[in-house]
Amino acid sequence: MAESMTGLKRTHRCAELSEANIGEKVTIMGWVQKNRNKGGLVFVDVRDRSGLIQVVFEEGSTDKALLEKAAKLRSEFVVAIVGTVEKRSGAVNENLATGAIEIKPEELRILSESETPPFPIEENSKTKEEVRLKYRFLDLRRPDIQRNLMMRSRVATLARQFMAKEGFLEIETPFLIKSTPEGARDYLVPSRIHPGSFYALPQSPQIFKQLLMCSGYDRYFQIVKCFRDEDLRADRQPEFTQMDMELSFVDVDDVIDINERLLAHLFKEVLDIDVQLPIQRMTWQEAMDRFGSDKPDIRFGMELVNVTETVKDSEFVVFKNAIEAGGTVRGINAKGQGGMARKKIDKLVDFAKGYGAKGLAYIAIHEDGTVKSSFSKFMTEEETAALIKAMAGENGDLLLFAADKNKVVWDVLGALRLELARQMELLDKNEYKFLWITEFPLLEWSDEQNRFTAMHHPFTMPMEEDLQYIDSDPGRVRAKAYDIVLNGNEIGGGSVRIFNQEIQSKMFEVLGFTPEQAQEQFGFLLNAFKYGVPPHAGLAYGLDRLVMLMAKQDSIRDVIAFPKVKDASDLMTEAPERVDPKQLEELGLELEEHTADAE
Amino acid sequence: MAESMTGLKRTHRCAELSEANIGEKVTIMGWVQKNRNKGGLVFVDVRDRSGLIQVVFEEGSTDKALLEKAAKLRSEFVVAIVGTVEKRSGAVNENLATGAIEIKPEELRILSESETPPFPIEENSKTKEEVRLKYRFLDLRRPDIQRNLMMRSRVATLARQFMAKEGFLEIETPFLIKSTPEGARDYLVPSRIHPGSFYALPQSPQIFKQLLMCSGYDRYFQIVKCFRDEDLRADRQPEFTQMDMELSFVDVDDVIDINERLLAHLFKEVLDIDVQLPIQRMTWQEAMDRFGSDKPDIRFGMELVNVTETVKDSEFVVFKNAIEAGGTVRGINAKGQGGMARKKIDKLVDFAKGYGAKGLAYIAIHEDGTVKSSFSKFMTEEETAALIKAMAGENGDLLLFAADKNKVVWDVLGALRLELARQMELLDKNEYKFLWITEFPLLEWSDEQNRFTAMHHPFTMPMEEDLQYIDSDPGRVRAKAYDIVLNGNEIGGGSVRIFNQEIQSKMFEVLGFTPEQAQEQFGFLLNAFKYGVPPHAGLAYGLDRLVMLMAKQDSIRDVIAFPKVKDASDLMTEAPERVDPKQLEELGLELEEHTADAE
Repeated sequence: MAESMTGLKRTHRCAELSEANIGEKVTIMGWVQKNRNKGGLVFVDVRDRSGLIQVVFEEGSTDKALLEKAAKLRSEFVVAIVGTVEKRSGAVNENLATGAIEIKPEELRILSESETPPFPIEENSKTKEEVRLKYRFLDLRRPDIQRNLMMRSRVATLARQFMAKEGFLEIETPFLIKSTPEGARDYLVPSRIHPGSFYALPQSPQIFKQLLMCSGYDRYFQIVKCFRDEDLRADRQPEFTQMDMELSFVDVDDVIDINERLLAHLFKEVLDIDVQLPIQRMTWQEAMDRFGSDKPDIRFGMELVNVTETVKDSEFVVFKNAIEAGGTVRGINAKGQGGMARKKIDKLVDFAKGYGAKGLAYIAIHEDGTVKSSFSKFMTEEETAALIKAMAGENGDLLLFAADKNKVVWDVLGALRLELARQMELLDKNEYKFLWITEFPLLEWSDEQNRFTAMHHPFTMPMEEDLQYIDSDPGRVRAKAYDIVLNGNEIGGGSVRIFNQEIQSKMFEVLGFTPEQAQEQFGFLLNAFKYGVPPHAGLAYGLDRLVMLMAKQDSIRDVIAFPKVKDASDLMTEAPERVDPKQLEELGLELEEHTADAE
Repeated sequence: MAESMTGLKRTHRCAELSEANIGEKVTIMGWVQKNRNKGGLVFVDVRDRSGLIQVVFEEGSTDKALLEKAAKLRSEFVVAIVGTVEKRSGAVNENLATGAIEIKPEELRILSESETPPFPIEENSKTKEEVRLKYRFLDLRRPDIQRNLMMRSRVATLARQFMAKEGFLEIETPFLIKSTPEGARDYLVPSRIHPGSFYALPQSPQIFKQLLMCSGYDRYFQIVKCFRDEDLRADRQPEFTQMDMELSFVDVDDVIDINERLLAHLFKEVLDIDVQLPIQRMTWQEAMDRFGSDKPDIRFGMELVNVTETVKDSEFVVFKNAIEAGGTVRGINAKGQGGMARKKIDKLVDFAKGYGAKGLAYIAIHEDGTVKSSFSKFMTEEETAALIKAMAGENGDLLLFAADKNKVVWDVLGALRLELARQMELLDKNEYKFLWITEFPLLEWSDEQNRFTAMHHPFTMPMEEDLQYIDSDPGRVRAKAYDIVLNGNEIGGGSVRIFNQEIQSKMFEVLGFTPEQAQEQFGFLLNAFKYGVPPHAGLAYGLDRLVMLMAKQDSIRDVIAFPKVKDASDLMTEAPERVDPKQLEELGLELEEHTADAE
């Protein structure tokens, strides 16, 4: 039965104790990690969020009733123990922060008993994630997850302190907002007071933070939940956290400066890592040309090489057709992979096809200098030699080529480069390489919608020198947009905003909005723009991903206390769920017939 | 036309400048507050979030083109001005922080023009709130609202820093959760992936923070949005902000201690007010008896006096019936109000009826000692004299009495006491009186539901000494619950939680939950309780209300950037709104026929 803690007061967390406390009388409270009974001794490891400490109940020196009580303890019982810190009588445990000491108990209370947990509470659990998520309240006891969430809390605290010192105000933006058709799909919230009408949950505080700039708040910061009802994808969460900022009277360099200092501060304080400032910048065009990606992982090379010129006269029809259709031929050099088995190469070809390639051409240069090429019969020896030279191919290298429209070539080789880096173990989780990507295209063509769509959002400022093309060649216009990339992950992005009504109207025009549609959707923002708008710019981080990288985890679920799974459900609470029909009635809603029957 | 700020960098905010900067060349950026043209001089007041500064363009010493440009400025234009700080040539403006200086300009850029705003941007606006909320982006420019939101940001920053130092972790709890029937009405969010199923938005992170305690996080803190779909009431918001905490291995005194130090810290840092610690504590019973309220305003007296004993033998049927029905007769003494006009007293009677009184008896003692009583004909002179004595009535006092069930008497006199204090101007906004209310009843009887409901929530710990009554007399059981009250406002509340499965089961039983219903609704929490629960307790503040009081405002809308109005709509964005039928189709929902037609 549970005992009360009345009269006791915890003096320390378990792992706050050290040799400095030897001789002190202390009271600890926590969970029994394990309990060993050995020749008249009972060793109890007590755990709290700080770590473990060993308590030793000893026949003879410990009161008999106490010894018997201790012997009955089981894993995950919650206990309070009063005792004296002593030097460890047995061998020092080097794996434990408190390994040189132990507690000699004089009082033990069992505050709460526990059934046997469905899986052991231990680091690097081998238990299936579905089981762990169903019992998330137990999974969250594991020290590795606790470290992740403690790190997350620290990152948020440090970021807020830093931003407050820089003059940023944390201002809360609303959650029950108006639905907008641009962007991803909104989560809707039916209104009861206005039946048939709906709020939407924010995909980001974008419009509100811009309004705050119009209202003179100058510097805004917020760590805030955002929502996107997207289709199933691994490692996406329907609700995610943005670390969001907006600044007035600034241009690109000001935003970059403050964010570099923020990142350097976080990495120094949390990981004791010195981020070299300034962080390297690269234009979008250069990133695509060199890495086939707008979020290149620059921890390794294996850069793309444009060999279009080199192969343009060859008879290889794959290359020829691609070039004639306005595309390019590019390759990457997987150093030292020239001896890769045919089977493994075939897998790479399949992998490339998954990214839209029709095929993948390759040249394997064996260690002895012999060359095996998948397209040798279409090339002269001189042409092959020229191609190897262009790729800086050496004995033992594997050269891989894609030929297609630029977009496909980039996608394929960008993905292949990462896949090879994984296979070749070139990715060091302890290395952090930051990179700014700048000068994004303002617009991207959507075949599906048969119109240009905004690459960032409709409020992104075009680069002044490209404004001249906005009518004649909109695809050519670059934006004052920037992403911050860490080890191949986009951890944040933003832009300078349009603060000029004429440019904003032009932007909506290019995006195919009629003035009426623009007014209907963004009227309040356009209205605000009539009354004096400061130049402003901002940036938002995906906090989940940033912390995931800092904590060296592979999934954002490991840095979120109560994550959802791929189908957006919560395995612990079983949300979402059917609700009482009365609740729907109040909202003036009915389930469609086939939906109502679905269960 | 808008000019670019390229090449300029702001050096100071307007009101950051002072006499210390005289002679310095500075660049400011902000909004034109006003523009006066006077005999060859143009005075421009430039505003940003820090305040105002005067810029003086002078014929002769200012370049002519610049002077002409300045003369064309209008209110709310956004400008950048480069110039030199000088001692003010005219009289010092004592009302302005920068009143002793002015800027002599050498460059002026108009970054953005403005139409004439629909209302002036000024403190203490006389413009109707509906208009201001429609143009909230302009309303937010007003210095008083800016001060409120800056104070709010500072309160949040200070609270987070304080709590981090005390070992609290900020852990984000989910927004898309399971709907629970207990408590207020949930906002629902339809699931697209699981058509016919719904998430709910959290009314509070209650269950998740308790789970975090079960998981060993020890100390949790969060400033977080919560949602309640309540019926229309002034000064309620469908989304509001909680400052929320939970602690393990603690009892009531520990929670009170940390919160007293938190409040003292906030009031000292933000308002330079010393909160006297410890804060006074009062049991719920005492609060009701003395003030007729569980959130008494103790800035003034006018306490309730129980005169049941004094009048129990009188022939006044109103008193008699109330007492016979088990009720009481209580009064308050409005000092110095004995000369109140009959009309005004009648209004008080109406006011009392609004709180459930059948009537209101009164005795007015005039300055000359004559007595006018609304029930004199039913009382002997001796009885009236005894009553006046019991009420410590003196010449010039007005005594008001209610007779009914205790609950009604408390409600009526509690409200009347506040109303009289307002009329008598006893409420000083500069005075802050804190009070803890403790030992709340665990349960309250609901006539509507014909069962007991939880006064706080179903996880509140009963007081150990009252556990014996839980079956025989549940209404008598007091809870380990506490509210923190400031000037008659409940700014926060919480409780020690049940951490014992048997007591929890008993509690659900008393609340009329079958074990199956309890399992269905709170299964994951009850499951968690099987695996070792620490004693834990918590508290949550209504941040909106706390900041409202600190900022000496009358409405929480004045401390929320984008508030909603009484019908839960947003006048600026016009949310909620009809959505595209396609969106509903994706969710498997239809509007009920009469709803669909409603528009």
